[in-house]
Amino acid sequence: MDAMARIEQALQAAMARIELPGGPPRLAAAMRHSVFPRGARVRPRLCLAVAAACGEDDPLITDAAAAAIELLHCASLVHDDLPAFDNAPTRRGRPSVHAAYGEPLAVLAGDALIVAAFETLARGAMGRPERLAPLVLAVGRAVGMPFGICAGQAWESEPEVVLAAYQQAKTGALFAASTMAGAAAAGAEPAPWRQLGECLGEAYQVVDDILDVTSSPEALGKPIGVDAALGRPNAAAQLGLPGAVARLEQLVAEAVGSIPPCPGAAELRALMLVEAQRRLPKELARSAA
Amino acid sequence: MDAMARIEQALQAAMARIELPGGPPRLAAAMRHSVFPRGARVRPRLCLAVAAACGEDDPLITDAAAAAIELLHCASLVHDDLPAFDNAPTRRGRPSVHAAYGEPLAVLAGDALIVAAFETLARGAMGRPERLAPLVLAVGRAVGMPFGICAGQAWESEPEVVLAAYQQAKTGALFAASTMAGAAAAGAEPAPWRQLGECLGEAYQVVDDILDVTSSPEALGKPIGVDAALGRPNAAAQLGLPGAVARLEQLVAEAVGSIPPCPGAAELRALMLVEAQRRLPKELARSAA
Repeated sequence: MDAMARIEQALQAAMARIELPGGPPRLAAAMRHSVFPRGARVRPRLCLAVAAACGEDDPLITDAAAAAIELLHCASLVHDDLPAFDNAPTRRGRPSVHAAYGEPLAVLAGDALIVAAFETLARGAMGRPERLAPLVLAVGRAVGMPFGICAGQAWESEPEVVLAAYQQAKTGALFAASTMAGAAAAGAEPAPWRQLGECLGEAYQVVDDILDVTSSPEALGKPIGVDAALGRPNAAAQLGLPGAVARLEQLVAEAVGSIPPCPGAAELRALMLVEAQRRLPKELARSAA
Repeated sequence: MDAMARIEQALQAAMARIELPGGPPRLAAAMRHSVFPRGARVRPRLCLAVAAACGEDDPLITDAAAAAIELLHCASLVHDDLPAFDNAPTRRGRPSVHAAYGEPLAVLAGDALIVAAFETLARGAMGRPERLAPLVLAVGRAVGMPFGICAGQAWESEPEVVLAAYQQAKTGALFAASTMAGAAAAGAEPAPWRQLGECLGEAYQVVDDILDVTSSPEALGKPIGVDAALGRPNAAAQLGLPGAVARLEQLVAEAVGSIPPCPGAAELRALMLVEAQRRLPKELARSAA
């Protein structure tokens, strides 16, 4: 089965638990709305790619790690879209969860997705109990306090923002968890995989910043110009478009160079380069090549 | 060390992780505001009492289970108080988290408390890796979907409420997790402990309902008459005050009768009876005795 099929199957299994008879149906529907239909699934694919490169020996636990990371990503999107934050009416070209189901269910959908992520890890690790704590800690660090997504979002409410901490926590942390959890799921040491995830996370953020100033709402499936409107830092605005593309090239090179020795290092390097080009608008990808 | 001191120490240790240098200070402060100063710590004390009754052999993992349960309880209070739900300006006689720190940090504080709960379990289980998955699943079920606190809160957004499911999920589930996690932390089978938790949870809810109609905001540290104002079910309103007190007596008797055979069953039974009397206003406790 290819990576995307594995991820969708693991997420469907997690959703099936959430949708067991006896629960409140509208909350289950709100959660499904936030997880399906799929986005790019960038983070869980990264998790699976690293596990494969490390010589994966237990697909169940890798799938659980990948699904948990995506559930947490979806949770962060649902809460980021809330009126108290971005107040975004749309997401992936459809109504955001609070627009479709109301604010109470959007808050609860995010909460329950966080919980479901940890339950998914626990179920997937039944055959490898000694790998569960490292996975919970890698993933927890990426989403909680003081260095995870919640911390990243909270920097927007601080009188003084530590910019590097803000960006690292808001985007880099979950990418780092994706590579580290992939390694941990395969029984490898996670720490050497942190740098790869952090570089890819920053690269991803630069692409996002470029798209926020160059794309259209139709192409992107969400509003553009949001950073400027909300006064948030944007690499393309700060460095100019050519500067942002150069920074992206540099980050991808650094990422590729950071891959630790492992059985599948060559394939992983090739995959990183393809993915980096794929997300940029075609005219920028050409100019950067 | 007595139970309350153990709980406070475990919660302080969890907060110390959250407050590590480099994170956003206002979010850390909002989280501390929601956890300290302490409330009654009913659920973690129940967890510790059950672990002791089961012949606790590893205080670290019991403390972690107790702290995780309290962190999740605090998270649920922070989110319940939000404008989208109860819109409560005060909690435990002080401003609620969103009143003190704003809505964005209140959403994030709840999220990060949920994450911190699972990290706390993972750290506490380092010496007993085989007990971590059962703990994560017992606690996750109590707070997530389809049967946990999120589900309970979500029933308020459903066009048709299944009343038993609503009350069980909103209050009973975390009490059941408290008894089951206490047993699991001590290496005992958790399932036989579910009924004790569920009965105590329902008893606690009946006391809460009685206080919502009989107490004062000063004595309770939060607004009263909230159920009537929000059209929520209330046992004292439905059964009358004597009926509610009779129902409470019945639930406590059922709880005490459900305690499975274990080394500390007698002490645990005595503790349950004392606690049940302690929470009721004195004049009701006397009439019920």
